Amino acid sequence: MVTKVFKVHKIDIESGGVLTVGLNKETAKNMNLNVGDRVEVFWDKKSFIAVLEVSKKAIPIGTINILRDAWKKFRVPDEVHVKAISKPRSVDYIKSRLLGNPITAEQIREIVSDIMHNRLSAVESTYFVASAYVQRLSFEEEEALTRAIVDEGEVLKFEGGPILDKHCIGGVPGNRTTPIVVPIVAAAGFLMPKTSSKAITSPAGTADVMEVLSDVSFGNDELVRIVKEVGAVLAWGGSLQLAPVDDMLLKLRYPLRLDPISFLLASILAKKFASGAEKVLIDIPLGAKVRSMKAAQDLASRFKRLGSRLGMEVKVVITEGGQPIGNGIGPALEARDIVLTLQGKGPKDLREKCLLLSGTLLEMAGKNDGYSLAKELLDSGAAYKKFKEIIAAQKGNPDIQAEDIALCPKTHDILATKDINNIRYSPDVLTKIARKLGTPSIKGAGIYLHVLPTRSVNKGGKIMTLYAPDDDRLEAVLEFLKEKTFVLDNKQILDTT
Amino acid sequence: MVTKVFKVHKIDIESGGVLTVGLNKETAKNMNLNVGDRVEVFWDKKSFIAVLEVSKKAIPIGTINILRDAWKKFRVPDEVHVKAISKPRSVDYIKSRLLGNPITAEQIREIVSDIMHNRLSAVESTYFVASAYVQRLSFEEEEALTRAIVDEGEVLKFEGGPILDKHCIGGVPGNRTTPIVVPIVAAAGFLMPKTSSKAITSPAGTADVMEVLSDVSFGNDELVRIVKEVGAVLAWGGSLQLAPVDDMLLKLRYPLRLDPISFLLASILAKKFASGAEKVLIDIPLGAKVRSMKAAQDLASRFKRLGSRLGMEVKVVITEGGQPIGNGIGPALEARDIVLTLQGKGPKDLREKCLLLSGTLLEMAGKNDGYSLAKELLDSGAAYKKFKEIIAAQKGNPDIQAEDIALCPKTHDILATKDINNIRYSPDVLTKIARKLGTPSIKGAGIYLHVLPTRSVNKGGKIMTLYAPDDDRLEAVLEFLKEKTFVLDNKQILDTT
Repeated sequence: MVTKVFKVHKIDIESGGVLTVGLNKETAKNMNLNVGDRVEVFWDKKSFIAVLEVSKKAIPIGTINILRDAWKKFRVPDEVHVKAISKPRSVDYIKSRLLGNPITAEQIREIVSDIMHNRLSAVESTYFVASAYVQRLSFEEEEALTRAIVDEGEVLKFEGGPILDKHCIGGVPGNRTTPIVVPIVAAAGFLMPKTSSKAITSPAGTADVMEVLSDVSFGNDELVRIVKEVGAVLAWGGSLQLAPVDDMLLKLRYPLRLDPISFLLASILAKKFASGAEKVLIDIPLGAKVRSMKAAQDLASRFKRLGSRLGMEVKVVITEGGQPIGNGIGPALEARDIVLTLQGKGPKDLREKCLLLSGTLLEMAGKNDGYSLAKELLDSGAAYKKFKEIIAAQKGNPDIQAEDIALCPKTHDILATKDINNIRYSPDVLTKIARKLGTPSIKGAGIYLHVLPTRSVNKGGKIMTLYAPDDDRLEAVLEFLKEKTFVLDNKQILDTT
Repeated sequence: MVTKVFKVHKIDIESGGVLTVGLNKETAKNMNLNVGDRVEVFWDKKSFIAVLEVSKKAIPIGTINILRDAWKKFRVPDEVHVKAISKPRSVDYIKSRLLGNPITAEQIREIVSDIMHNRLSAVESTYFVASAYVQRLSFEEEEALTRAIVDEGEVLKFEGGPILDKHCIGGVPGNRTTPIVVPIVAAAGFLMPKTSSKAITSPAGTADVMEVLSDVSFGNDELVRIVKEVGAVLAWGGSLQLAPVDDMLLKLRYPLRLDPISFLLASILAKKFASGAEKVLIDIPLGAKVRSMKAAQDLASRFKRLGSRLGMEVKVVITEGGQPIGNGIGPALEARDIVLTLQGKGPKDLREKCLLLSGTLLEMAGKNDGYSLAKELLDSGAAYKKFKEIIAAQKGNPDIQAEDIALCPKTHDILATKDINNIRYSPDVLTKIARKLGTPSIKGAGIYLHVLPTRSVNKGGKIMTLYAPDDDRLEAVLEFLKEKTFVLDNKQILDTT
């Protein structure tokens, strides 16, 4: 094996998670390495695998350029060794599965570990995900995949129980139930260490919304401390080392905007498992990502089966998902809805959905008539008190009021040009509008729906207000809405003509 | 659409064909761009699409870093514009095909064009190749794929005809027939503008071997001129702009060392089509990459069917492929075999195979009893004369003798430790030995088989000589052979114990 010592030159360039190093072209050639090859960079007992760039002149012989993604992740010393890596055996397992053969739990573990440690290229890893289209993963394979994802990261442990959790598969704008459900359940004395994600394609994720109100990035120890102190947390999952390989898998699943169901299930339940959950409620909004009751029921039973193989109790609720929920769409506007709902003043549809979810969770934890208990905890102010404790523990301002939450300065009202009864929105178009206005990165951007779905509005009444950071974005949205001539969907028409 | 003007900073770093540019991180954020996104870099009427790197400090605001791969390929001016690109529609076509639906010729053309122009990421493109495992390509899709590959590059045209070509699907060490077949066929007055590849996993490709004897990199015009002058050429396909997208597809197909058959067929016949071929002979060695007669016959009929859809006459010969051919394995050693064979002194098995292939090609061109004609052209010296014309036209030394071709200085003889009758080799182990010795990049490295397959050797006789550039490589191979205890295969045993 040809290895050499190189002086490290740290380059302040980010390559987007692809660990990248550069060598002199001649040196690489002498080591039998080509540009694009993967090499192992190692020192003491540590190492990482990176993709190779080369240069005739810009990189001196004896020097290795290491780009930021790698030296941020590893404490790289001043000198390192470099060697070529051979193809991992997992390439053969992926090949076999792509040709329609089942693979063992041990082989899946090896594939996932090799993805995690960069030993497989993006192309090789993609074939693993693609193989799920050739032949659906068996229940054994699905379980093995989930456990492998869990095993590549840390697992949280909490004293006392049961540890409750929830997850919504998404697709409904404004559906920000988690920051309301968690304090209701915690107010009843149950532990709910909730980690959430940031938006990828939606106007906001729960972590984007919570960021408006408090910190959301915690180390594992800090998170455990907060849960011990107040019984719950509303954290960003990305700040923890739970199932980190899941983010790498997401980059392989996401580009086509499709998802082999086994990978979706494994991704969701691995994160729940790693965050210590024992009882998990899954919310499948019907009419959003899942379009038929049969598909929703199939998905529900697959969630339950995989959960039970992992030793978790999984319950599924199939909810109405064809329309947005709440008045606000966008991080700050949704944060306003949350504070108002906890104060008893929020949008009715959001409140009802939160009571349904909280009630179900309370029953999973052993309570009778969960809905009534949830209602009592919300109406008595106990949930709001718990929410303030959580916000304070997360270094936010617990006394913040809805109107204190800043929105973007540029606004535009959309008015009804005739009387409308039983109004319907296209969630997809609302999502596009909100994203064009700047969500989720611009917290104060978004849409306020003055008229909730199924309600009525008279000619001249406000249907919605748009919030934008600048005129450019606002005009781009108005232009976009012109193209749509305000008919947002054949069936679901926002009729303003 | 947000676009900005940037000053170009050319960076002398190669990223392996992945066009890469860098922007200041803040600038990128303001343009709604993230690291890893693809951006369009444009000026006047030209543009390319690249993957984005970002840096807080190393890249000043207003500057764009452009890595070598991009500025080598395009004449990039001092200032360029940059904008985000939206997902191409072809992502939806790939998604649809991955879910098992057929797609149209027009959609395939769009996918291939988007791969060619970098509009699809490696992950997205991989799903296209993977979709062939979900559902085999239909004949219509296969034809569309081939035509799309052809249409993305240039197409050669030659005066007079028929234009003959050949292709071997490979896997047989030492099987260097092309440089012998081409002069035989050209000596009969037929045009054979042959382009070949360099080795990826084998000890040598035809272009690697020809590089020992002459130039192999020509522009399209130069290649046409050589063919006009001497009736044939033995060029490296990679130097031409024929079906350039095929190399990009290869990077997607190759990592798992498997190949959806439709992609293999499309790749081979697209290159033939683009190089102007009208009649193509395909050599399928049985026992190498293809293991059963049924698989070979299936493949043969698929070659013929696709050829006929493209308007080419395709003939297939299924040849013995379980054993190496000729004495030499490695570029220089195979070049020696070629010169000797054309002088009537080469290894018998190589000679016989060349006569078979040449004879078949001559019959495809309209001659009777091709085998006898080929033999006559070879034995009379007419083929050797034509070979020398080709070598001269390709700026090589036409008078080179086998012993003038330099081999590596370090040698090791492997002797028979007992009498062996009917010797058999493992082609896979020979390939591994040759690669470990340094082939194909070290031209003089390789193996000389003193005993051709099926022949006998007495105890103490030389079986093979290894040629290595240095002691390290030689020792590594001897170490490797020790592990193998010289039993190279259960059935095919090189028995020296």
